[in-house]
Amino acid sequence: MSEQQAPPGAGPDVATLTIGILGGTGDQGRGLARRFALAGHPVIIGSRSAERAAAAAQSLGADPRIRGMTNADAAAAADVVIVAVPWDGHGELLASLAAPLAGKIVIDCVNPLGFDQRGCYPLAVAEGSAAQQAAAVLPDSVVVGAFHHVSAVLLLDPAVHSVDLDVLVLGDDRQATDLVQALAARIPGARGLYAGRLRNCGQVEALTANLVSINRRYKAHAGLRVTDV
Amino acid sequence: MSEQQAPPGAGPDVATLTIGILGGTGDQGRGLARRFALAGHPVIIGSRSAERAAAAAQSLGADPRIRGMTNADAAAAADVVIVAVPWDGHGELLASLAAPLAGKIVIDCVNPLGFDQRGCYPLAVAEGSAAQQAAAVLPDSVVVGAFHHVSAVLLLDPAVHSVDLDVLVLGDDRQATDLVQALAARIPGARGLYAGRLRNCGQVEALTANLVSINRRYKAHAGLRVTDV
Repeated sequence: MSEQQAPPGAGPDVATLTIGILGGTGDQGRGLARRFALAGHPVIIGSRSAERAAAAAQSLGADPRIRGMTNADAAAAADVVIVAVPWDGHGELLASLAAPLAGKIVIDCVNPLGFDQRGCYPLAVAEGSAAQQAAAVLPDSVVVGAFHHVSAVLLLDPAVHSVDLDVLVLGDDRQATDLVQALAARIPGARGLYAGRLRNCGQVEALTANLVSINRRYKAHAGLRVTDV
Repeated sequence: MSEQQAPPGAGPDVATLTIGILGGTGDQGRGLARRFALAGHPVIIGSRSAERAAAAAQSLGADPRIRGMTNADAAAAADVVIVAVPWDGHGELLASLAAPLAGKIVIDCVNPLGFDQRGCYPLAVAEGSAAQQAAAVLPDSVVVGAFHHVSAVLLLDPAVHSVDLDVLVLGDDRQATDLVQALAARIPGARGLYAGRLRNCGQVEALTANLVSINRRYKAHAGLRVTDV
């Protein structure tokens, strides 16, 4: 079997990696923190304020695997860093963290979205996508796009033991996308699938607007599965 | 149960509608023609050349339900019209058919994509999407986006009896999107899901580039399913 045909479940051993989550005080960040801690990972929630980061960590049940720090300290201490900050200020924050993020895999899960009286819609991004913006301001990091479509509600729900979701993983570095696919598979029920180069990340981010429309119409917490893989 | 909460399988009775397919000589058009004819619909394949349209109809097994005509005659004769033409020339062709398409539901399934040595990528579209471009040049039609992700290979394969796919349906007119959802459900295995307004169609079209990447990596004919709906 060639490397190209490896099944999506295979991949590097990521079980001991410490995961930092910038902007980890939001629902998406807290939900990912909770699931990775449940899977056994040390998790560092980052925030502009160390106090808010510590409070967010506490809010997840005083799990000793989850700590709170400033974004800069989280970026420095983690093996792999997830970016879950608001789109507003995304580029500026990452640029300010370029030094502690150098040499690391940075997983961007930010969806640049707007809302008006007709619902949700994608915002235009000069670089093409949030992930490409991250890559532009972090030339010494390896940026991967992933975890855009995870439902924070489901991640945070203690009654939900398995998340029915394929995590689409976008990036230009095979070792990095393999690692992020393996990380996605640490969430019970989830599967990480390679879904293209970073230049194809914009539509994956924007598709979150469609999931919002689907959730509204069908009163759901919609996720995606890819068939025939 | 309110109308908002109707299950996705419910919908208007579309079983007797004649379906026209502009650009129906391509693989996607022929595949859809085959499946709708199998479901009992009269189907008209349209082409710039009536002869090529007739040949495409013949290629599908001399099914008497499938006929070939010029695009203009197909537009005039059909109840509902699917646009499966190449992106190159899409707007000009539709503008030339505005009169026969007036008053009809027009389903655009065109994906504006480019290919280079690094693979497939979405093309920038001034109107935001192929579907929005169709709406701009067809002010007297009701444009719906759908059927972007169907695999022509699977649609055309006689050994494939069921297609494992949710068809994302985009549009601003509820009656029209309901009808197109019902049409999608005429393909065994497929389900039509409302996935947002027409302004959210661009990323659905562009996501086809990701499916191309997935197909290449995993040697698959990937489709999408939406979970929790």
